[in-house]
Amino acid sequence: MLRLILAAAVVALAPAAQAADARQMEENKKAVLEFYDLAINQKNFEAAAKFLGPRYVQHNPNAADGPEGLKAFLGFLREKFPDYHSEIKRAFADGDYVILHVHNVPTPNARGNAIVDIFKLENGKVIEHWDVRQEIPEKAANANTMF
Amino acid sequence: MLRLILAAAVVALAPAAQAADARQMEENKKAVLEFYDLAINQKNFEAAAKFLGPRYVQHNPNAADGPEGLKAFLGFLREKFPDYHSEIKRAFADGDYVILHVHNVPTPNARGNAIVDIFKLENGKVIEHWDVRQEIPEKAANANTMF
Repeated sequence: MLRLILAAAVVALAPAAQAADARQMEENKKAVLEFYDLAINQKNFEAAAKFLGPRYVQHNPNAADGPEGLKAFLGFLREKFPDYHSEIKRAFADGDYVILHVHNVPTPNARGNAIVDIFKLENGKVIEHWDVRQEIPEKAANANTMF
Repeated sequence: MLRLILAAAVVALAPAAQAADARQMEENKKAVLEFYDLAINQKNFEAAAKFLGPRYVQHNPNAADGPEGLKAFLGFLREKFPDYHSEIKRAFADGDYVILHVHNVPTPNARGNAIVDIFKLENGKVIEHWDVRQEIPEKAANANTMF
C-alpha cells in the first residue's frame, strides 16, 4: 500500500519536474548551439569559453584535455583550415547531455565528414565532450546520404 | 490579450503533454535497446525485425536500404564476424529519436570502434537509421578514452 501511495506521489510530481527538466534541456541545447558556432565556425576561443564550466573533459583522441586543448585546436584550425565549418543537421537534448549530428567540411568543396558531438553540461555550462567522425565516402550502398 | 491567453493555455497544457512525451521517449529508448541487442549482438534478424516499422531508411553508406539491407548486414556479420558486438555506453532519447553511443568490438581483443547510432521511431517502431563510426586509435592526446 505504501508503495502504491509513493508511486502515486511520484506520478503527481513528475509533470512539474519534467517541465523544469524540459526547460533546462532547451536552455542546454541553445547554449551548445551557440558554443558550437563560436568555437567551430567562428574559431573564436575567447567568445566560446564563456560557455565552458569549471572543467572541459576532452574525449576526442586528437585533442588535449581541458580548455587549453580546445584553444590549441581552434588556433590550429584558424591557421591551417580557415574555411573549416560544420553545418548542424540535428540537435538533441536528454538530461545533462546535448548531441549534435553535423556535416563537417574542412576545406572548400570537400565531401567532408559526418560527425556526432556529445556534450555534457553542468549548471548550463559545457564540461565534457565526446565525438565520432567518419569520412563521407564517394559511393554509397543507398541513395539516402549520411544525413 | 488573446495571445496572452493562448500562451497561458499552452503553459497549462505543457506538463501533461511533456509527461506523455517522456513516457513515449522512455518506451522508444527501451525498444531501441532491445532492437539493438537482438540485431547487432545476437545477429537475429527475425527477432529484431519485430521492432521495425513499415520502412527502414538506411543512411549507413555501407548498407543497402530497407529491412533487406539490415538482414543482409546481419547475415554478413554472422558469417564473417561471429564475435562482433557492441557495448552500449550511453543511450539518449529526444522526441522521435534515440541515440546510442557504443563501443564496437568486431573481433576478439580488437581495440574496436566508437560509434554513434541514431534511430528515428514512429509509433514506437524503428523507421530510420544513421551512424558514424571511428576507429579507436592506439594513442590519444588525452587520458580520458573515447568514452
